[in-house]
Amino acid sequence: MRFFTVLAMFISFSFPSYAETTVSPEVSFIFNSFLFLVCGFLVMFMAAGFAMLESGMVTSKSVSVICAKNIGLFSIAGIMFWMFGYNVAYGIPEGGYIGKFVPWSDNSNIAKGYADGSDWYFQMVFCATTCSIVSGTLAERIKLWPFFLFAAVLTGFLYPFVMGWQWGGGWLAAAGFSDFAGSTLVHSTGGAAALAGALLLGPRLGRFSKSGLPSPIKPFAASSIPLVTIGVFILWLGWFGFNGGSQLAMGTGDDAIAVSKIFINTNLAACGGVMAAGIITRLNFGKTDVIQMLNGAIGGLVAITAEPLMPSPLAAILIGGVGGIIVVYGTKFLLSMKIDDVVGAIPAHLFAGIWGTLAVPITNSGAKFGTQLLGVIAINGTVFVVSLIIWAIMKNTIGIRLSKEGETKGTDVTETGVIAYAIRD
Amino acid sequence: MRFFTVLAMFISFSFPSYAETTVSPEVSFIFNSFLFLVCGFLVMFMAAGFAMLESGMVTSKSVSVICAKNIGLFSIAGIMFWMFGYNVAYGIPEGGYIGKFVPWSDNSNIAKGYADGSDWYFQMVFCATTCSIVSGTLAERIKLWPFFLFAAVLTGFLYPFVMGWQWGGGWLAAAGFSDFAGSTLVHSTGGAAALAGALLLGPRLGRFSKSGLPSPIKPFAASSIPLVTIGVFILWLGWFGFNGGSQLAMGTGDDAIAVSKIFINTNLAACGGVMAAGIITRLNFGKTDVIQMLNGAIGGLVAITAEPLMPSPLAAILIGGVGGIIVVYGTKFLLSMKIDDVVGAIPAHLFAGIWGTLAVPITNSGAKFGTQLLGVIAINGTVFVVSLIIWAIMKNTIGIRLSKEGETKGTDVTETGVIAYAIRD
Amino acid sequence: MRFFTVLAMFISFSFPSYAETTVSPEVSFIFNSFLFLVCGFLVMFMAAGFAMLESGMVTSKSVSVICAKNIGLFSIAGIMFWMFGYNVAYGIPEGGYIGKFVPWSDNSNIAKGYADGSDWYFQMVFCATTCSIVSGTLAERIKLWPFFLFAAVLTGFLYPFVMGWQWGGGWLAAAGFSDFAGSTLVHSTGGAAALAGALLLGPRLGRFSKSGLPSPIKPFAASSIPLVTIGVFILWLGWFGFNGGSQLAMGTGDDAIAVSKIFINTNLAACGGVMAAGIITRLNFGKTDVIQMLNGAIGGLVAITAEPLMPSPLAAILIGGVGGIIVVYGTKFLLSMKIDDVVGAIPAHLFAGIWGTLAVPITNSGAKFGTQLLGVIAINGTVFVVSLIIWAIMKNTIGIRLSKEGETKGTDVTETGVIAYAIRD
Repeated sequence: MRFFTVLAMFISFSFPSYAETTVSPEVSFIFNSFLFLVCGFLVMFMAAGFAMLESGMVTSKSVSVICAKNIGLFSIAGIMFWMFGYNVAYGIPEGGYIGKFVPWSDNSNIAKGYADGSDWYFQMVFCATTCSIVSGTLAERIKLWPFFLFAAVLTGFLYPFVMGWQWGGGWLAAAGFSDFAGSTLVHSTGGAAALAGALLLGPRLGRFSKSGLPSPIKPFAASSIPLVTIGVFILWLGWFGFNGGSQLAMGTGDDAIAVSKIFINTNLAACGGVMAAGIITRLNFGKTDVIQMLNGAIGGLVAITAEPLMPSPLAAILIGGVGGIIVVYGTKFLLSMKIDDVVGAIPAHLFAGIWGTLAVPITNSGAKFGTQLLGVIAINGTVFVVSLIIWAIMKNTIGIRLSKEGETKGTDVTETGVIAYAIRD
Repeated sequence: MRFFTVLAMFISFSFPSYAETTVSPEVSFIFNSFLFLVCGFLVMFMAAGFAMLESGMVTSKSVSVICAKNIGLFSIAGIMFWMFGYNVAYGIPEGGYIGKFVPWSDNSNIAKGYADGSDWYFQMVFCATTCSIVSGTLAERIKLWPFFLFAAVLTGFLYPFVMGWQWGGGWLAAAGFSDFAGSTLVHSTGGAAALAGALLLGPRLGRFSKSGLPSPIKPFAASSIPLVTIGVFILWLGWFGFNGGSQLAMGTGDDAIAVSKIFINTNLAACGGVMAAGIITRLNFGKTDVIQMLNGAIGGLVAITAEPLMPSPLAAILIGGVGGIIVVYGTKFLLSMKIDDVVGAIPAHLFAGIWGTLAVPITNSGAKFGTQLLGVIAINGTVFVVSLIIWAIMKNTIGIRLSKEGETKGTDVTETGVIAYAIRD
Repeated sequence: MRFFTVLAMFISFSFPSYAETTVSPEVSFIFNSFLFLVCGFLVMFMAAGFAMLESGMVTSKSVSVICAKNIGLFSIAGIMFWMFGYNVAYGIPEGGYIGKFVPWSDNSNIAKGYADGSDWYFQMVFCATTCSIVSGTLAERIKLWPFFLFAAVLTGFLYPFVMGWQWGGGWLAAAGFSDFAGSTLVHSTGGAAALAGALLLGPRLGRFSKSGLPSPIKPFAASSIPLVTIGVFILWLGWFGFNGGSQLAMGTGDDAIAVSKIFINTNLAACGGVMAAGIITRLNFGKTDVIQMLNGAIGGLVAITAEPLMPSPLAAILIGGVGGIIVVYGTKFLLSMKIDDVVGAIPAHLFAGIWGTLAVPITNSGAKFGTQLLGVIAINGTVFVVSLIIWAIMKNTIGIRLSKEGETKGTDVTETGVIAYAIRD
């Protein structure tokens, strides 16, 4: 018995708690709103992180369009989430399936505990993050405006629809599903939508032409590793807001302790993901793959997102480490399936998100494995199938893929007419 | 009558308000100071945003000097605003025209409601932003140190001079002018100073040589679109601080509600600017111009800056959308006038700033169109004329333009001796 | 006598103070924790700043490995500081020499004044910063995994060991040493460890081969000046967290005033460093060296870090300005000694850190020059000697330097197999 008690100490955080709070409701209201705004701007900045990660990962003839996609999707997400998304998610009846199709409006009220607008802002950037995940996978061959159309549907309806099941108090929440900051709700959703698109789009021309895989160096080389790196650091930074803000409160001493723990676990999971990917690629493939280390950070971060509060620091490192390992082997798996995920978003967000969500019961005794599995299947299944239908409709109407000629010239020349790097000695 | 009431709901935010606050003066003091510091560091980071936007926009032989200009002007702004600027602006008599030429010193006092230093910091980064706007327009042909001299005058005297008319409680404030966070005071001021410089400097060699305009691809191609993109995302991030911090308080529940609304409107205006520019360039010119989308974000942000609190979300999208449209056509207008604005700062900051300022009365019933027009003319006129005089004096004494040989070699080789991109395969 | 009183006003900040605070302990607890978290994420982002600064400074064949080093060392630092570092530093007996080798655990307690985790987070990013400093100096020739091994020792043991002498309440604190935010404890420690490594590694092949120094343009040209620039701006941003958070409290009006002052002085010192380096290089060498301006910012920031609260704004500018001058001449000195510091970290962090620490008594009457000198010698001496021993052991066992062939091909090809910039027209 004592063995398990000691083991539990290594797995879950033990922490003190104050019975009563002495913070006045209005001060608490300000703290809570401040947390949403600060964490919200950190998450907003993740849009820049994705833009840089993807710009660096694609070949140099598809960078301008990636930039257009990222600034565009963030704009679409903001507008759609205001116009439809928020109330699709939060206008849901208790235990229900779908909310209302009306724009968000401000109903701030001191009894609510936070400024309504601060919550909208925080939820909006989550919605945008979901969409950012899709962008990179489909790079270098998708048409720009059909992508924007998908982004509008995803951010206005699809993401809010499944998200409301849990965070809007819908049927999954009633079933006892646990996903603290959105390993499944945000990250797997983005990954599943990207996977559906990648299947219908097909790989880039020449990516898998000669039986074996092409060399990682040429001709599909990443255009800029430092841009990938700053992208990952920005995402890492943003994740403190993503997970920390998901405590949803900073108005008591207990909340401050919880947010601090979340920061620590979030950080340690990323550390675990980086080092796991670095060690594995060095040992198995001879060289230390910097791209996998960078994506390993994302895998670790996604994995801890389902439960960043309860794990002990050691457990956080291990959960993140497994996330990093999943990224490395998930990437190999996709290549073996000839699915062309240009930036590795599917392993990092979908696969690591599934892992993180299923791992919640290890450290949170309130969660059940069966319910976690139910949530993973329900959300990923729904998002994947609906996305597949949307992509298929677009494919058979407006078309989603560039012409061969357009793809060969590069998306930048074809779609924006602006080359990305005009560098002369 | 009812029609107008309903219409007004779509135009202006309606929001609840608490009659009394229960926050103690010292807690309020800390919240207010914290807001200034957090929003201030966000605005400080805009200096990096401008540096990246400009580095990416110029040709690859003028990037190192852009970096030198941006790090230098931010440094000059800090020193000059401490030594002169703050008290030139705030030492102004009520309803008056100019303040005192003495350095800032700390007079913190709990009754004042915030730490004096936090306010200095917040105002200093606004001053630096004004100067950052000037830098890009004049790129690739201006001499470095004359630019620094102009930066010193602008940040120590000219910006504080006109800014004090409004925010220092001078005559424009007394007249009822309304410019919440500085569409005119900061952005148009920067744009007007840049326009004056561009007229006196003339365009880059070969920019307009052969009747028609040169191809956008060569030879004046932007050196790096992803750097422009991260620059714009950083500016967008910083703008939450810029507009949110201009509430000047976070010490009551009402303030928290207001800052949250400002975040939302700021975001939606940028969204509107991006999408308007994207749609227009796609429809009118066949390709989706990523550079215009990125500058459209700036145009939208500048436009909402004059009044980010009162508009409804829909109104914010429209105000920002018009800002984006102004950027697209303003850029064409400048080209047709053979004015060479290398980064598009004049349309985004001067033109969109005028629009945003004049649009205030649409959503804020306390503002009058005539007074807004007065403020726009007074400030832009003063800044433009004084800047023109300063540039002219420098042109006829120390010289402001590089030699033909120096410009042809590129500013990087000529001025810093450091090439910007030394990339070898 | 009056002369000295007036002089003192120009040197030190005078500021008001409230006798009693009216903030409740729990509100104060939240504010303090919030400060640690916000300042902590700013410092965390400095890891990205170092990664970009170094990526831009090295030649284009060693950029991917720099990225791997930076993401890796930050991960190692997080894990090691949790597992050993924190309690090596803080488990120290009062006035003692070394703490305990046990992992950190959460002991939050409202009486302590802040959430334990928020402090861990803030201290962890300081530890990582120390290690980031080492990375750049040794670039382009060190093997990746031996560097990681050194990083583990530095972040788990060596930095916490000397840091505990002061901030853990060890013997240096008892002796009256003063180092507010770590000019010596963090920056000189990083610089001294880097110097030891540089001496044992030797310079890059061909760096000093022909009597005179090679041209700064070829063949050791910085790969990207804009990346260096965004790196420096990120570091500058992060420094507000670094120095501001070192107030360790935001729970009273006095704290808010102090943090605000620290922001101002931090900013002005950086301004001084930039302009001093810019002016000196322009006057002495004919061209304005943008790299020295950028490193001058770092030198100014490091110099003010030992005492960012007490100096007047003017004193801060001067302290930072001397830091910038030290960077310029320190760089020349290292070159004359044929020590190859690829990014200039030794002048900026070690030399400017010594200056800043010795300068504390000028503005802080509580500090004594002799004690400052003792601290500088004790810490730098210890770190340098221990680092030298560690590097020497590794050199003679696993080896620390790449083969000639590997170095000639470039670290990117040799170590990661991923080229950094795959840019094609």
